[in-house]
Amino acid sequence: MMKRTIRIGMIGFGTVASGAYQIITQQREEIRNRLGCFLDVVKIADTHWATRRSISPPKRILTTEAQEILDDPSIDIVVELIGGIHPARAYILGAIEKRKHVVTANKALLAVHGTALFGAAVRAGVDIGFEGSVCGGIPIVRMIKEGLTAAKIDSIFGIVNGTCNYILTKMTDEKKPFTEVLSEAQKLGYAEADPTLDITGTDSAHKLAIMTRLTFGTPVALKEIYTEGIDGINPIDIALAEEFGCRIKLLAIAKLSGGEIEVRVHPTMIPLNVLLSKVDDVYNAVYVTGETVGPLLFYGRGAGSLPTGSAVVSDLIDIGRNILKGVSGRVPPASFYPEHQRRLPIKKMETIESLYYLRFMAADRPGVLSKVSGVLGKYKISISSVIQQGRKVGGRVPLVMMTHRAQEKNVREALAKIDRMAEVSKPTVLIRVEMGAP
Amino acid sequence: MMKRTIRIGMIGFGTVASGAYQIITQQREEIRNRLGCFLDVVKIADTHWATRRSISPPKRILTTEAQEILDDPSIDIVVELIGGIHPARAYILGAIEKRKHVVTANKALLAVHGTALFGAAVRAGVDIGFEGSVCGGIPIVRMIKEGLTAAKIDSIFGIVNGTCNYILTKMTDEKKPFTEVLSEAQKLGYAEADPTLDITGTDSAHKLAIMTRLTFGTPVALKEIYTEGIDGINPIDIALAEEFGCRIKLLAIAKLSGGEIEVRVHPTMIPLNVLLSKVDDVYNAVYVTGETVGPLLFYGRGAGSLPTGSAVVSDLIDIGRNILKGVSGRVPPASFYPEHQRRLPIKKMETIESLYYLRFMAADRPGVLSKVSGVLGKYKISISSVIQQGRKVGGRVPLVMMTHRAQEKNVREALAKIDRMAEVSKPTVLIRVEMGAP
Repeated sequence: MMKRTIRIGMIGFGTVASGAYQIITQQREEIRNRLGCFLDVVKIADTHWATRRSISPPKRILTTEAQEILDDPSIDIVVELIGGIHPARAYILGAIEKRKHVVTANKALLAVHGTALFGAAVRAGVDIGFEGSVCGGIPIVRMIKEGLTAAKIDSIFGIVNGTCNYILTKMTDEKKPFTEVLSEAQKLGYAEADPTLDITGTDSAHKLAIMTRLTFGTPVALKEIYTEGIDGINPIDIALAEEFGCRIKLLAIAKLSGGEIEVRVHPTMIPLNVLLSKVDDVYNAVYVTGETVGPLLFYGRGAGSLPTGSAVVSDLIDIGRNILKGVSGRVPPASFYPEHQRRLPIKKMETIESLYYLRFMAADRPGVLSKVSGVLGKYKISISSVIQQGRKVGGRVPLVMMTHRAQEKNVREALAKIDRMAEVSKPTVLIRVEMGAP
Repeated sequence: MMKRTIRIGMIGFGTVASGAYQIITQQREEIRNRLGCFLDVVKIADTHWATRRSISPPKRILTTEAQEILDDPSIDIVVELIGGIHPARAYILGAIEKRKHVVTANKALLAVHGTALFGAAVRAGVDIGFEGSVCGGIPIVRMIKEGLTAAKIDSIFGIVNGTCNYILTKMTDEKKPFTEVLSEAQKLGYAEADPTLDITGTDSAHKLAIMTRLTFGTPVALKEIYTEGIDGINPIDIALAEEFGCRIKLLAIAKLSGGEIEVRVHPTMIPLNVLLSKVDDVYNAVYVTGETVGPLLFYGRGAGSLPTGSAVVSDLIDIGRNILKGVSGRVPPASFYPEHQRRLPIKKMETIESLYYLRFMAADRPGVLSKVSGVLGKYKISISSVIQQGRKVGGRVPLVMMTHRAQEKNVREALAKIDRMAEVSKPTVLIRVEMGAP
């Protein structure tokens, strides 16, 4: 006899939880048609029930005590959607201890405590779903763990933060400075009141840590991810990127080569002829290359109540299917079985190689180009093209160079030297270029 | 104690099978790391072992008798990769009867006999994987069945045939006629010696039938899919599409509205500002809209030995995970449980509504525009823009119109009337326009 319903308890009832709840209730039949039984939300815990919400679950299932959910033996799956490290971590571990399955969209928590949480789930024999933690409505987690298991992925380039992508798109289209666009984005609700986590690249680094673990079977600590935000991007560099046939995007990059992993988040110039450069506004996309499958691109809404809510519900259906069959741990949470995970060496940022866009603010007098390129040459950095603009900015003119492939360490040392020249106003702007020469 | 290996028998050893075999052998450890045990190909049946292949499995596992595979009680999963209806269908049913799981990439077979094959698998309690049947390396089947279970998909627009997309891309970029590009594509191996299945849109219709069933839970007969190929596309229409800010792509379209399903395959103009219009060459892409997730795009290689081979192996891993846990039927083959599938009415082509691009070849004299638009008006077809070109083609000039939303039936009747005018050379060219007004 088939179990009649899968019983769900939700901890946290903010934007994503409301979306998930709405989908569960409004698509009750559709979910049953695919899952084979109904999903029922039987309890929701939140500390602030006074907050106005677009959707109102029946009062009888509301509580302010998350512990009630953990203590309810009838609940099969606990959905943690409060975000942050504390007390989310304790709730998830509490649920696992009670042998309940867990669904979360908590990228910060998984990026920092993924190993411990996944380990606890495996030991307890419960499932942990986290599709909502990366790229909202794009099922990228399931894709890596189940769809691309034979793709032999060697690189990932992701636009994984909608706020940053919106800001960069507006800066490009409307030629406005960062601060102006940020405050517009805040008014429109596309950026938080405190946008730090997004604009510094930290949120992208969280998602990159999760994707890297699933793709390459290696844990990555946040501090191992070189992270640079978009607050230093100037309209002049966006305009110059266009002259080089490029756009600037905040990319989360992971690459495997020679047994080492490169993991970094930074503004990146990418050629206009690659599909990823057309991913605009709040949209996210992940571009993956695999030895067997070639390039792949997955595009969609990276955030929002219903898109991320639908990711959460897809996890509930997935775990529900396991519950109905009486199994768990069918797919290891980290994609690789614990005994087959390996700690791959993380490539030091100084040793990566890239193409570089360099903008010097130089005195408008003869000989500067020769002096600057002389220093670059000494550091084995060769130049593929130069733009020397006429217009002055504060008595200086932008001298812009696109390099051939060079080593980060050499570039940094050369720039330190060049920045000490009297003819150059520091700091020189450096933007890495990826996905083929423009 | 964990089962040591999953034993696989392959029937057919052509392009895709070689790719799958190569992946299974070369990624032996990687697969084990994710699956928890090894995949072993223990027998391969093919009728033509004399054919030269890039990869040579050990002779001891080769046979010319598919029946040997069906009769081998040690084989867990049978991979059918001979294509076509007969004897593929019999082999699959034979495998299911012997309680073996099945993996296939046979889109023609699934499009025609999907209901029977899925039914047999469900009754026998075995799994059937078919990720390789749609869009090669893009895991679109798994995405619909597992990733987007809460997306509430309402439309699909797919570029699902690489040959057609390659031909249309070259016709656009190099302004060459269809026949010339087709023969180039044949020389390059991008089109078959007999390209009928591809260029008539039939192959796209097969894939659309499969995607529609998985997405909307309804079977669709091939003959219910309105199917038009690309052989009638002229360079002049490609050039005029550009003047309207569009590109022509062969799209497989499925839409759900008002409880009815629209399913059609035909050359379609789509605006240059949508990502799908940038999907070029042999690449495939599926654009999906869902009520909860918004728009999604999945892009990648739609064919080829390794991309499609990797899809086949992802199915083997998926089924292997079930075998290790001792379960089957965890996800119904048709995505919906048999008792929850419904036969949705298929919208008659005459009743669909669309924007239309119409090219009349008209006599170059006053009054023709008025006469033509008069007839269109009578059939409630209003015109959003007109291009009347100066250049003559065989004593006639192209008179091109883009309509507002109109009903197919009205458009066809109006064109039949217009084509009888002395001032117009029939047939008038009709290309539907989708994805927003250009």
